[in-house]
Amino acid sequence: MWRDLLPVGRCDATGGYRRHAWTAADAECRAWFAEQARERGLTYETDGNGNQWAWLGDPTAGDAVVTGSHLDSVPDGGAYDGPLGVVGAFAALDALRARGLRPERPLAVVNFTEEEGARFGLACLGSRLMTGAVRPETAGALRDADGVTLTAAMERAGRDPASTGRDDERLARIGAFVELHVEQGRHLAATPHPVGVASAIWPHGRWRFDFRGEANHAGTTRLEDRRDPMPVYAAAVLAARANAERLGALATFGRIRVEPNGTNAIASLVSAWLDCRAPDAALLDRLVEETARAAEGAEVIRESYTAVVNFDVPLRDRVARVLGGAPVLPTGAGHDAGILAGEVPAAMLFVRNPTGVSHSPYEHAEEADCLAGVAALAAVLEDLLTSAADGLDAAR
Amino acid sequence: MWRDLLPVGRCDATGGYRRHAWTAADAECRAWFAEQARERGLTYETDGNGNQWAWLGDPTAGDAVVTGSHLDSVPDGGAYDGPLGVVGAFAALDALRARGLRPERPLAVVNFTEEEGARFGLACLGSRLMTGAVRPETAGALRDADGVTLTAAMERAGRDPASTGRDDERLARIGAFVELHVEQGRHLAATPHPVGVASAIWPHGRWRFDFRGEANHAGTTRLEDRRDPMPVYAAAVLAARANAERLGALATFGRIRVEPNGTNAIASLVSAWLDCRAPDAALLDRLVEETARAAEGAEVIRESYTAVVNFDVPLRDRVARVLGGAPVLPTGAGHDAGILAGEVPAAMLFVRNPTGVSHSPYEHAEEADCLAGVAALAAVLEDLLTSAADGLDAAR
Repeated sequence: MWRDLLPVGRCDATGGYRRHAWTAADAECRAWFAEQARERGLTYETDGNGNQWAWLGDPTAGDAVVTGSHLDSVPDGGAYDGPLGVVGAFAALDALRARGLRPERPLAVVNFTEEEGARFGLACLGSRLMTGAVRPETAGALRDADGVTLTAAMERAGRDPASTGRDDERLARIGAFVELHVEQGRHLAATPHPVGVASAIWPHGRWRFDFRGEANHAGTTRLEDRRDPMPVYAAAVLAARANAERLGALATFGRIRVEPNGTNAIASLVSAWLDCRAPDAALLDRLVEETARAAEGAEVIRESYTAVVNFDVPLRDRVARVLGGAPVLPTGAGHDAGILAGEVPAAMLFVRNPTGVSHSPYEHAEEADCLAGVAALAAVLEDLLTSAADGLDAAR
Repeated sequence: MWRDLLPVGRCDATGGYRRHAWTAADAECRAWFAEQARERGLTYETDGNGNQWAWLGDPTAGDAVVTGSHLDSVPDGGAYDGPLGVVGAFAALDALRARGLRPERPLAVVNFTEEEGARFGLACLGSRLMTGAVRPETAGALRDADGVTLTAAMERAGRDPASTGRDDERLARIGAFVELHVEQGRHLAATPHPVGVASAIWPHGRWRFDFRGEANHAGTTRLEDRRDPMPVYAAAVLAARANAERLGALATFGRIRVEPNGTNAIASLVSAWLDCRAPDAALLDRLVEETARAAEGAEVIRESYTAVVNFDVPLRDRVARVLGGAPVLPTGAGHDAGILAGEVPAAMLFVRNPTGVSHSPYEHAEEADCLAGVAALAAVLEDLLTSAADGLDAAR
């Protein structure tokens, strides 16, 4: 199962994955998912927002236990971020069936669309649309690097963009959501535990800085006559890093677009994206404000913002108890589970990552730790499937 | 004539020109040149390196006076840089004919290929190939941003790449070369003179800096665990600017490529191009060395280098005398005339630029100043065409 998916959307030059929403590589991943559902005799459906579902039991019975993650990737991403949670979900389902489990609640495996936001710039797009965290008109107008809108991309992929938007009926089916994911840091690497449980997701967001200047000849324009935005950008990069260190937060400029981007031309425009995360909202605001102050004259546009997510405490405690006291840890990374947490009890399991590397071809998890993750997910699902979700909703 | 050329290769969004060698826009410019030759009954030819020639008189007679420039542009370049010298050449030829001139020497108008190096990274490619300043094997292997080699691009454009290389026969035809060009600075703007004469071209070159790091998740990787090349690049940008100020030189980072260039991924590679120019070679070396020192660990590759060019003194003095004491000024910009200056007596005329802006859609010259440039070129050509080049070669 894992092996079939490995070559899809892999770039030979980098060894990294380029599985972006509604591209050919994405279509291959989707076909793989549908095939997994078919092979297992599960009820397969794609919702109006393009998320894929595979149901064991009656999808409409309610109080379902849902597990899964996403199959898309960042540019040159690793093999685990996302796919581990989808492949792991099918593997856990297989394990439960093999031991003859008779679920009292429906079980679904889900693949959320455009979790990374690599194509249209908004992370967790599929789960945000489903929960109404982004309006369908706003999402539909998002454009990729070639100017193609989400609406146009969905049409080209044979989907109806008019069916996007909050999906009350589908949300009402879900009793609990559990996502298995590779850890994107080194908390667990320092422990004897292959699997941990998420406590919270730091508030985070993306800000675009537009540094405007004046294009001119690099070989003839006197330094004092220049309006060169590149040194201003450089000052902002150094300020972002220093501010993050001082505030105990994270700030990264990892994406840039320069016009005209010619060797012998002074730039007229540098657009750069700042990714910021902090333990609380006030610190995050301060981090962005102080970095914007160093970027004299740049226009700063907030492209996305996700408030702090505290995962459902009763569910989290129950999961940790089932796993015999697995470590509980926060993360700076956004996830579909974080979006769903505003609607249904949600939990996350992390699989140990020896180097902490993620969003890179070098992302890795040991096979034994992945299998431990699947076993942990199966144990959690079994516990949830054989008893009602009583108390979870009440405690939220 | 000027009006026909204006729309070719113009980008609607920016108003700038994107006329890159061996593209469709370039083919249109070439067709325009061939048509100008045909309309005037001139002998038209394309040499083995793709440069276009239009001859009045016998091309093989020798001791020819050649004038012209280039039609290609930087990304989003202006209308004047290059085309003014080609359009101006045809206009000056028309003026000389209108006043009934009987040339004693052949006259040619030339359009050199890929002067800006915007597609294959090496400026003055056509004149460098013709003079042997770059080897044909080296040039043929140059690649554009999409990985297309010059060899492949020439084949697609219907040219034979095997015919590139030093062209002794054609160089031997040339008695003098004069290039008319828009000034790319504001020296003349501060004077009452619409036209100036070039004294020298500063030594200059392009260096690629490869800053390597490790791709990782921007939201989970602790600052102390990062190998982020972006802050190192930022430090190099600020150092380049400070070094140029201190040394009285020019240094510009205007082009950058980031991998994977994702908002939530720490960069694994930042490649950035440094354009450097200085009054002499020792200062230029120091500027690059000191900037490389600030770019800790970056690999620095020299992609091109052009030594100082001192234009032929007898020709320069003769041109200035014909123009009644026009100002003589140096420039930081490379030109085909600078490449040819190593082989034949060469001179340049600059047309006043009120803002100094160049390599930008806002590049501009007043119509009256352009006409003064054409009149000056016609006067210089008339002087050269009606007397032998005696003394020019001897004095070099």
